[in-house]
Amino acid sequence: MTPADLYLHNAEQVVTCASGAPRRGQDMASVQEFEHGSVAVRDGRIVAVGPSHALEGKFKADRTIDCRGRSLCPGFVDAHTHTVFGGDRAAEFEMRIRGASYLEIMAEGGGIVNTVKHTRAVSEDELVTSAAGRLDEMLALGATTVEIKTGYGLNVDDELKMLRVIDALDRVHPCDIVPTFLGAHAVPPEFEGDAEAYTRSVIGEILPEVTDWYGSSRFADRGVPMFIDVFCEDHAFDLDQSRRVLEAGIASGLRAKMHVDQFNDSGGVAMALELGASSVDHLDVTDREGIEMIAGSDTAAVLLPAVNFNLGMAEFADGRAMMDAGAVVALATDLNPGSAPCPSMPAVMAIACRYQRFTPAEALNASTINAAFAIGQGDVTGSIEVGKRADILILKEGDYRHIPYFFGGNPVLTVIKNGQVLNP
Amino acid sequence: MTPADLYLHNAEQVVTCASGAPRRGQDMASVQEFEHGSVAVRDGRIVAVGPSHALEGKFKADRTIDCRGRSLCPGFVDAHTHTVFGGDRAAEFEMRIRGASYLEIMAEGGGIVNTVKHTRAVSEDELVTSAAGRLDEMLALGATTVEIKTGYGLNVDDELKMLRVIDALDRVHPCDIVPTFLGAHAVPPEFEGDAEAYTRSVIGEILPEVTDWYGSSRFADRGVPMFIDVFCEDHAFDLDQSRRVLEAGIASGLRAKMHVDQFNDSGGVAMALELGASSVDHLDVTDREGIEMIAGSDTAAVLLPAVNFNLGMAEFADGRAMMDAGAVVALATDLNPGSAPCPSMPAVMAIACRYQRFTPAEALNASTINAAFAIGQGDVTGSIEVGKRADILILKEGDYRHIPYFFGGNPVLTVIKNGQVLNP
Repeated sequence: MTPADLYLHNAEQVVTCASGAPRRGQDMASVQEFEHGSVAVRDGRIVAVGPSHALEGKFKADRTIDCRGRSLCPGFVDAHTHTVFGGDRAAEFEMRIRGASYLEIMAEGGGIVNTVKHTRAVSEDELVTSAAGRLDEMLALGATTVEIKTGYGLNVDDELKMLRVIDALDRVHPCDIVPTFLGAHAVPPEFEGDAEAYTRSVIGEILPEVTDWYGSSRFADRGVPMFIDVFCEDHAFDLDQSRRVLEAGIASGLRAKMHVDQFNDSGGVAMALELGASSVDHLDVTDREGIEMIAGSDTAAVLLPAVNFNLGMAEFADGRAMMDAGAVVALATDLNPGSAPCPSMPAVMAIACRYQRFTPAEALNASTINAAFAIGQGDVTGSIEVGKRADILILKEGDYRHIPYFFGGNPVLTVIKNGQVLNP
Repeated sequence: MTPADLYLHNAEQVVTCASGAPRRGQDMASVQEFEHGSVAVRDGRIVAVGPSHALEGKFKADRTIDCRGRSLCPGFVDAHTHTVFGGDRAAEFEMRIRGASYLEIMAEGGGIVNTVKHTRAVSEDELVTSAAGRLDEMLALGATTVEIKTGYGLNVDDELKMLRVIDALDRVHPCDIVPTFLGAHAVPPEFEGDAEAYTRSVIGEILPEVTDWYGSSRFADRGVPMFIDVFCEDHAFDLDQSRRVLEAGIASGLRAKMHVDQFNDSGGVAMALELGASSVDHLDVTDREGIEMIAGSDTAAVLLPAVNFNLGMAEFADGRAMMDAGAVVALATDLNPGSAPCPSMPAVMAIACRYQRFTPAEALNASTINAAFAIGQGDVTGSIEVGKRADILILKEGDYRHIPYFFGGNPVLTVIKNGQVLNP
């Protein structure tokens, strides 16, 4: 018998999402599930996956979990978050319900700038503690790998502070973290009305410090990429500014992604694809031509429907058309205190199935294997495959379709992260 | 010092929702919260609530919980659910996403009739076990009192079986349950196409057995009312049939409520108000006149926005207009396997704040004190008031507005039910 640390057996269903490349089209409509399956884990890696009858008796495991009545699926990958921030925006949430306009909220000190102020004001330790609390909740809801952006510092010192917080989270928290530099998230108060001057500061002052930091970080040591991201939008950074930021980042060894087409179609999709961006995110107003372009590329479309839900909108990014066109589509929470105060990948899947016509299989692929590829982690996580990290969820129900079907609660019974059983 | 079983102190906020009557208008916009508060509990009842400085040192409690950084609010009351059912409808959920019509789903054996078939087929014990699992999740998400309807039996034996399950749940589960007889939920297969004949069976055959059962039940012993409910809708029971069912129920000592105006305005609201119904539920298409009528009555409007969300709809019942008109408005999950597979009152509040413009205070009153009055429990639960059941939630955050603001997870840290600390 082969030694193992953990043996999960008799699951009603094992949903592998296995794939050497992002899933598209018909491949995305299937999750490669099979009935009555087992998984063996050693040294934090998956060493076997298959039908229970084929694996039974082959492993001598330190711990065995009977998964009768349950199903197994890969840990979720949350590919777009702003998990590190100071303060909250519950008051702004209430103001918006009472009918306050965006400008009134800004006048009351609301919006991203509010979060920038609080993030700058609180200590590194406080940011680690509050973000770790959020990661606890995200992990309990199934996210085992989480991308986290900077972008509430918006100067050298505070962007580096955010990066140190992100690094600390990766060290202290079970979740694996992938860092993104989003210096071009908003124009900070000290550059108010002068996005151009701030763009030059991002490229000339902040980016060099950030790339230095990354070069000597544990992320670089372990081959975890760092991304550079820009909020390309009318009231943020225009197409030319966005291009210069991304090109500078790419030249410094970072990989590109972009917030684009959330409110206005600025032509950002074509530019991002031309630069070989790993992902284009939001895409609420992307037109048919843009969808076809994405479908013809290897760039992932990362959709963030919790934002639309949070704003009480009836319109959502046309994920159905993107999937039908053959695009690589992923889902993420966009967790942030303003537009998406949502730590739950299952909630995002529930919204996507109802308002964007994802099937349960498509929603799961979009939240696992495709999301992993969207942040450069497709070779290490996002599916139940031999050699990958043992990031596995034991679901309460024996049918994975319950993840989006039964909504508002937590479909996850037990999270296994890097082979560790976290909530036994 | 006064002896107490439990003393909760130093909460950042105590939100009482205290009221001797359902909250409306301006009263509904306020939850009567105060800062730095404490609550004392003895024999399952609240014996004191007030500012910490006023209560400190007055109680000698068996257990004291420091609520610094947390807030307290009443346990949620879920006033409309179908928690007891056999089978699930995940396959139907997927069919609908793939574009199947209602008729195609019915042809595949979907819809309410599918659940009737499964509910009839499984044993009483199985129904208790599956429903108790759902109640566990509802309770963890803050619901401490839950109304549960029959309506998947649709004959004497199976409606009584559902009532015995509801009674068993009340005995074995910490949640307090309020029973509703919903024989007129759908026309069962054996009466297909003949709602009139089935209506006569409900009134002449099932109702007498149900009222007999109730009369000798623990519910009646303890003064917990039983309700009679009808699904008044084009493809279910017409206005005349609905009236006869409700009148027969009322004559037998039950209290009336009605599923009305979900798809079509049939004039049911006026009829329900005339009969003095405790609540009218759904109200998606209720017009201005109907809203004014409800606002002029003591009947609660129970809104079920998880249904609209589940169907991916952009339109929701006009809760804002109802509250502005001064109606007693409550929220509930409508938990059921078809149109609302949702165990979460916080999720319902999150939807209501975003798609129906409830403020956080209005959503909380609608989910506590008003919901309690809607099911005849306003004198025993639904607020933190001396003499009421100690049904109290310790929230993770110090500001109750986080309940709907931060959505998709669970805002509840600890549930206290009848004075028992359930998840310490």
